[in-house]
Order: sequence, then structure tokens, then C-alpha cells
Amino acid sequence: MKFVRYGVRGQEKPGLVDPEGNIRSLEGQCDDIAGDVLSDLGKFKDIDWKTLPLVEGSTRLGACVGQTGKFICIGLNYADHAAESGLDVPSEPVVFMKATSAICGPNDPIIIPRGSEKTDWEVELGVIIGKSAKYVDESDALNYVAGYCVINDVSERAFQIEREGQWTKGKSCDNFGQTGPYLVSTDEVSDPQNLSMWLEVNGERVQNGSTRTMVYGVAHLVSYLSQFMTLHPGDIISTGTPPGVGLGFKPPRYLKAGDVVELGIENLGQQKQTCENDK
Amino acid sequence: MKFVRYGVRGQEKPGLVDPEGNIRSLEGQCDDIAGDVLSDLGKFKDIDWKTLPLVEGSTRLGACVGQTGKFICIGLNYADHAAESGLDVPSEPVVFMKATSAICGPNDPIIIPRGSEKTDWEVELGVIIGKSAKYVDESDALNYVAGYCVINDVSERAFQIEREGQWTKGKSCDNFGQTGPYLVSTDEVSDPQNLSMWLEVNGERVQNGSTRTMVYGVAHLVSYLSQFMTLHPGDIISTGTPPGVGLGFKPPRYLKAGDVVELGIENLGQQKQTCENDK
Repeated sequence: MKFVRYGVRGQEKPGLVDPEGNIRSLEGQCDDIAGDVLSDLGKFKDIDWKTLPLVEGSTRLGACVGQTGKFICIGLNYADHAAESGLDVPSEPVVFMKATSAICGPNDPIIIPRGSEKTDWEVELGVIIGKSAKYVDESDALNYVAGYCVINDVSERAFQIEREGQWTKGKSCDNFGQTGPYLVSTDEVSDPQNLSMWLEVNGERVQNGSTRTMVYGVAHLVSYLSQFMTLHPGDIISTGTPPGVGLGFKPPRYLKAGDVVELGIENLGQQKQTCENDK
Repeated sequence: MKFVRYGVRGQEKPGLVDPEGNIRSLEGQCDDIAGDVLSDLGKFKDIDWKTLPLVEGSTRLGACVGQTGKFICIGLNYADHAAESGLDVPSEPVVFMKATSAICGPNDPIIIPRGSEKTDWEVELGVIIGKSAKYVDESDALNYVAGYCVINDVSERAFQIEREGQWTKGKSCDNFGQTGPYLVSTDEVSDPQNLSMWLEVNGERVQNGSTRTMVYGVAHLVSYLSQFMTLHPGDIISTGTPPGVGLGFKPPRYLKAGDVVELGIENLGQQKQTCENDK
């Protein structure tokens, strides 16, 4: 099933996408697509979707999961992307955090921060945790996943790389984490390691890859991270990006106000953002 | 004023410490020491504390602030600590994130993760944001601070330094962020850059410093971080540690089950933790 959160930012309501492609409200069925609700998304299959209120007209989509406590990212997790960044494939996963305040809806603008000259794109497969996970085996790890989504891990390369240690500064700016449109539950993703993914800037395809070429797959990442910390429902793991980011072009290419970014992953929907300068 | 959160983990109730040193309940006065409540802590001065219910007996203290969205840390922010780590003082603040799931009460145990051999201590001044802050000037920055607290930025040095890029893995383990006992509101901290701080392991003083020797002070840090991302009420900035961490000893010294760690900051109270191995 495809779950959404729709409405005004900060007050999103839960919904699902019905078989005809319309949004139906889950108000009254659950408070949010968040927390304990994520541990049993299967129960919504028992509802006759035709009885759910149709959400009329166009509505803003928010991030497809709420109350995210951790926005964990994996660096250099595609061999070709590591190469374009001039870095070796790591011997174990590289882990960093984005601020959860960077999370926004799939079509919310990319906001270019003041002073930024190197705002870049990264299409990534997002993994949404459904149940608390600690010291879980790789063989069991996918049982802790609620679903998958598209993420744009927007990155300011100067803030990330040229401004003293650690990547946090270049990864955590407001609206640097478009998440959605859908949380697609695991029953609809038969193999998370075989999804094509793409990203276009002003209609030109710049990223074109597949989760097939991930260095460390989803099950490994969930198990690996759970050795260090408890993963909680609603935590997001953004699993790295394939080649084709702006940093990898020669010369590098970065986003400017007015640019349009579109991205998507097979079965998980797509996003569209316009870039604007921060006020 | 000194604010606390007390009771069972995950269900903490708001309270304050009265002039006689007792905990009084703020139930009915506010939902939590969190969110918008932090923007106007001064209003609690108008309450006659003698009318507030006394919290009888001993009670667990939780982290002194709730609903923290970002747990931002500053690395190498004391010149002497940079030296003991064998690193230069950075030309601008080094920023990294701890998982918010690492946050716990001031006297909750330090849990040594499976496989850890290098769990270390770090007494730090914590800054708790009271109002949303974006692009604020250094001269105005302290107006966005709700209060201060003691933090133990517990760190696993092998996970942090020897396990492939970025410090997140060594900083985010469960119970690696003791926070409190009190959120001390800014009116009781006349100068955050003149607070003595200390940490003892099994009664031996190992850290002995003062916020006077911070490289980048609180006002600078709030302003600096707000250039990259919006700081929200309840966000914590842990401002770095003075010399004396286990990594700096020759040979290095690390924590083992049964060790007792006590730490404190002038005017902000103190913490006491026993180390235990994770199950």
C-alpha cells in the first residue's frame, strides 16, 4: 500500500492512495503515519478503501512519515558514486546524520541557503523503520522495515567538505530532505535491491541508476546500524546515491534559483522541486 | 529557575526545583519542559511555588528537556582538548550530530555497547534552544537560548575514529547523552563563558576546566549554526569538552562495567552514572 501525509506543513493528515490513484483520508483510522502505526501497516488492508473519505482537489503532500527521530544517511554506498567523488569504496558503511528539521514534502522547494554556491542533488532510496531494532541479524533485518520512499538528499558541497570536519553542515539545511511522495509498504516492494532510480535537472537526466549497485544493501544497513544504536519506528535510513551528482561533473554543476529537479524510484513515485534562494 | 523532568523513562512529567531544593510538580501548568513552553520560562516565576505539589520520595530524573529534534555537538572546542586529541584547533566550529535516541536522564547508566573497548567520557555545557533561530546575529543569539544544562557526551572512540568516516557511530549509542539534572534558565546564568566544570571516574578527578577556555562561545555557536539550519525549541547544542578525556591519557583509559562517573558544572548541578555492559 501507498501511504501519504497531506495538508499544511506541520499539520499533515494521514492518508493512502487508493487503487484508482486518489488520496483517501485515514483520519479516524490513525493519528499519523508515524510511531507505532508503522509496526502494523498491514491492518489497513482490511479497510474497504471505498469507505474512506476522498481528499478532493490538489493538496500539498508532506513527508510520507512523521515524528522521525533519526535521519541517518549512508555515504559513498554506490561504487560509481564513490569514484566520481574521488573516494574509495568504504570497507564498512559510512554513517552520518541529517537534521530531522531538513525533512519536507516531496514537492516542497529546494531552498538554497544564504551564501551557498554548491547546492547539489542526490536521489536515494529511503528505508523507514517500523519496529524498534537493536542488535538484529541481517537475516531478520527486513522484518523491522515498514516501507520505502524516495529521498532527495540535498547537499551543499562547500558546507559539507570545505568548512571544517564532518558533513553535517552541508546536509542539514532547511528543506534539504524531500521525503515521499509515498511510504510504500514492504509487501509492495518485492526486492529493494532491484529498483531503478533517476534524477533530472531542468529536464536533463543526470542520475540514472539502480539499487542493484548498492555496496551495502538494505538488510545489511539495518543490521549494521542496529549494532550501534536502537532504531525506532519512523527513523529514516537514506541509503546513498548512484552516480551523476553535480559534484561529479567536470566542471561541477550546482543548482540555482529557478532550476527544476525531478526524481523518482521504480514503484515508489516521483518528486518535483523548484529551487529558490532563501530569504 | 531550575526545571526538571521526572518519572518513568518516556513518560516524564514537568517540574521545578523550589528554593528549598525539593521537586515540585508542574503538571497542570504545562505539558512538558519542551517545545513552545521553552520560549517563555519566565512565566513560571509568577507561580507561588508553595502551591505546587511536592514530589515525595526519590524519583528518577529524565533528561531536563523533552522532544529534542536535534542534538548538535561541537568538536574540538577547547584548545587543550584538541591538543590532547592530537588535532589542531579548527578554523571554524566542527559540527556533528548525536542521535536524539542517545538522550537519557542525568543518572541513568552509561551502557557500554557490545563490542566496545573504548567507551569514553566528556563533560560538556549544553545549550537548550528556546525559540526558532535562523540567520541570527551573534549579538542577538543568546535571546534564543532557554537555558543551560550538564551533558555527558559519551563517546566510543573506536566506533568514532577507527570504523570508517564521520563520528556519528561513536556518538549515538543508547544512553550516550546524559542530559540534566536541570534546565537552568538563562536568568540564573549570568555568564555562560565563566562556569567551572569537572568529571571524576571512580572518585578520581580527570576533567577540570572552565567554559572560559572555549574556542567558540555560546553566542557564536548559536549564530553560526543558525546560518546552516533553523534551530528549534528543545534543540540541544553540546558545546565541546575540556581536556581530560580517556583518549588523552597515556596510555588511554576507558570505561568498564562497574565504573562510576560523576560530573558537574558550576550552578548547573551534577550527574552520577554507573557503567554497565549492554545486554
